[in-house]
Amino acid sequence: MPFHCSHFRTRRLWYIAVNIDEFRDAGYRTVDLIASYLEGLDDAPVQTRAMPGSVRAQLPTKAPEQPESWDEILSDVERIVMPAIANWQSPGWFAYFPASSAPPAVLGEFLSAGFAQQGMLWATSPACTEIEIHVMDWLADLCALPAKFRSDGTGGGVIQDSASSGSLVALVAARERVRRVTPGLPLEKTVAYVSSQTHSSLVKGARVAGYGMIREVAVDENFAMDADALAQAIRMDSDAGLVPAFVCVTLGTTSSGAFDPLSAVGAIAKSEGIWCHVDAAWAGAVGICHEYRELFEGLEYADSYLWNPHKWLMTNFDCTAFWIGDRQELIDTLSIVPEYLRNAQTDNAAVIDYRDWQIPLGRRFRALKLWFTLRSFGAEPLRQHLREHISLAAELEKRIRGDNRLLLSAPHSLALVCFAHRDGDIATQRLVDNLNATNRVFLGTTRLDGTLVIRVAIGSPWPVAERVDELWNLISELA
Amino acid sequence: MPFHCSHFRTRRLWYIAVNIDEFRDAGYRTVDLIASYLEGLDDAPVQTRAMPGSVRAQLPTKAPEQPESWDEILSDVERIVMPAIANWQSPGWFAYFPASSAPPAVLGEFLSAGFAQQGMLWATSPACTEIEIHVMDWLADLCALPAKFRSDGTGGGVIQDSASSGSLVALVAARERVRRVTPGLPLEKTVAYVSSQTHSSLVKGARVAGYGMIREVAVDENFAMDADALAQAIRMDSDAGLVPAFVCVTLGTTSSGAFDPLSAVGAIAKSEGIWCHVDAAWAGAVGICHEYRELFEGLEYADSYLWNPHKWLMTNFDCTAFWIGDRQELIDTLSIVPEYLRNAQTDNAAVIDYRDWQIPLGRRFRALKLWFTLRSFGAEPLRQHLREHISLAAELEKRIRGDNRLLLSAPHSLALVCFAHRDGDIATQRLVDNLNATNRVFLGTTRLDGTLVIRVAIGSPWPVAERVDELWNLISELA
Repeated sequence: MPFHCSHFRTRRLWYIAVNIDEFRDAGYRTVDLIASYLEGLDDAPVQTRAMPGSVRAQLPTKAPEQPESWDEILSDVERIVMPAIANWQSPGWFAYFPASSAPPAVLGEFLSAGFAQQGMLWATSPACTEIEIHVMDWLADLCALPAKFRSDGTGGGVIQDSASSGSLVALVAARERVRRVTPGLPLEKTVAYVSSQTHSSLVKGARVAGYGMIREVAVDENFAMDADALAQAIRMDSDAGLVPAFVCVTLGTTSSGAFDPLSAVGAIAKSEGIWCHVDAAWAGAVGICHEYRELFEGLEYADSYLWNPHKWLMTNFDCTAFWIGDRQELIDTLSIVPEYLRNAQTDNAAVIDYRDWQIPLGRRFRALKLWFTLRSFGAEPLRQHLREHISLAAELEKRIRGDNRLLLSAPHSLALVCFAHRDGDIATQRLVDNLNATNRVFLGTTRLDGTLVIRVAIGSPWPVAERVDELWNLISELA
Repeated sequence: MPFHCSHFRTRRLWYIAVNIDEFRDAGYRTVDLIASYLEGLDDAPVQTRAMPGSVRAQLPTKAPEQPESWDEILSDVERIVMPAIANWQSPGWFAYFPASSAPPAVLGEFLSAGFAQQGMLWATSPACTEIEIHVMDWLADLCALPAKFRSDGTGGGVIQDSASSGSLVALVAARERVRRVTPGLPLEKTVAYVSSQTHSSLVKGARVAGYGMIREVAVDENFAMDADALAQAIRMDSDAGLVPAFVCVTLGTTSSGAFDPLSAVGAIAKSEGIWCHVDAAWAGAVGICHEYRELFEGLEYADSYLWNPHKWLMTNFDCTAFWIGDRQELIDTLSIVPEYLRNAQTDNAAVIDYRDWQIPLGRRFRALKLWFTLRSFGAEPLRQHLREHISLAAELEKRIRGDNRLLLSAPHSLALVCFAHRDGDIATQRLVDNLNATNRVFLGTTRLDGTLVIRVAIGSPWPVAERVDELWNLISELA
């Protein structure tokens, strides 16, 4: 029986019960389908071999006029969708950064959809707002963040949909800060500073926010931002009548996992009154491990800080943890209160309305999945999970160093290893193509100092040790 | 047993099976919890009575160090979360616009989380990209949209996370269009046109995009934008050396459901080279009903068009259907291709990479829930669903007209009815407070022409006829 058919034949209340039974049955079968997908992940090819257009070719050209059964739908999922998805969660997936997702978060997302809350205001879903405030405080504590980032400080945490959106929010707030200082300042005069290794979303965000200039600061031999070069660029721009407004410090760059010198850059930003945004999208997860805290030294300089539990902390996308040092700066920038959104709690300033902390008005109950992840695993097992990946990366680095056909492209950073073939780009490309052709592993490439390099990012939520061994054997054989 | 404990004790593969069984069990219980929540919706109070801070007061101050069981977690959901959520799906929820969610979409969201795809590029999830292209074409056909909005035309459809984000994308593309025409144009000179009834997200978006000016055009007696006033404003601004860049036409305003004159405004926009954005966030759903097509006449003038299946079409948030007339304008504005995102299919321009159609880089497999909704219900039952709500609104309007204690504030628009107490704002406020105090219904207010009015937005996915009757009885009794 399709859902809800009866809905259109009767308005009597018992129809709900009828349909709830159908929901229950369809729900169990969906659980089974996901379970069998996850069960098969370890043996499945890592990448799909779908060709452009191959999925669409199997779909009818028009939407159905009449209901289809859950049977038909799930069977199309198995027949059409599943062969054409990329197995991001496979232990053999070493490309990009992980977008790891584990069962507790998957069920959190499910429950969030079931409750169908709109968390734009405290009043439109108190639970959605308060669980989010609370879990973001938990995470701030786990990472030992400066007190200003807690909700009982001057700032607080919020879940953004992506690092791109979080960075855009920071860019806009930074822009408004300099415009408050210099009323009438033309946007064309504002400058945002990044490095050549900063994530592309920062350049995109600065473009969206209408910055006049995006200045790419030079990096040192480890691909970290050169703080002296930054100071010099700021001086030259100021002398030329431009207004430095924003600098992005990356902790764990996308290409090689480099760490920009946060304390040095932060001190410069502070003395110049520039907004200091810290993007630790991938690496931020290890802030929960005490032994890596020094990587995050200088966070007291940050006006905004973000990292993605949806990358390495097994909380499915979208879940970007974003903290602001001074929430009033954010609210002043993003708050617009039309009549139809007014309510007693907001008017009394008794609550946080997360609508004013982000670009969109609407928001899902994303805190559930983060809450479930932290509780189901517990902080200590999560630390062990990260540590295991880091030690596997160290082991892989050692093996690469010991093989004279290969060159390590940068020191391994946490669970990211970059290497190249000694014979140059063509040999490196051939090696990665051959590795990916096995479909037991999937690796990406980037360029460092103009040289093509292979990236190995370890981060699957499932056990990966054996697959990293296998990866090494494949490299060894195919190099 | 908590999830994954074994993961940290062994790397052996059998652990996956162990945990999958736990996932299956936890999944079934989550299905049961959602089912019992939905089953109870009809009898449950519509609004939570949670007080600020009441949820947080029940939570431990620190994240747990060790795993907690699914039992503990679900029992906290029942004990702490459920009493503090707002029952947006209740048949008695008439506030805001609906954020309707039905079982097929809930299961689509669940499956999307289970597959954990990253749809930023075609290559990172062919199924995610192609199902989305296809379902957006289905929806374009169901709404009889101009051919340019189809993927085989010059444009195409994409799912954005919200109307706010979709409008921002349009605002930025419009801004870049005038800057291409006039290189070096200062942003301070750009003007975006809205009306006093346009949704607040447009003002927020124009602010984020750095527009120099947001011009509020006057509305007529039906709260629709006055096209002559728009033409005059454009003329005056151009004469003053400003550059008109963007106009938003709202079909179904938030306060009263008014329809701006699309054909007239569109023609002006076209002759002036201004980007015409059409926001039908709520009302757009009825485009699937043939008898309402005339409300959308003039869409051939639109450069971008959006509406939210997550409002009235039972597809849980987030799901904003956004169409662009010329996809190249979007891509030119938003595309940035760093080395680590390059791939053969993108380089060959053989595919759509939705990353270039939105602000964030990452994206979930949102098309699944829209696909499931369209297939599970079928187009004709979906039309009947909307028609039923509209006829209930018409009936309610008739009753209000027939009661001399009440004043209809505007003709009912589709399933939205606005009315006030004849005795003025204080009496209206008292009436809505008393209605909401019953907790059998939940209504919001807005202001029209300075007068406080009560909004009744019918749109629950569950049968609402009896509750609308009950609402009328309560109004009658409490007025």
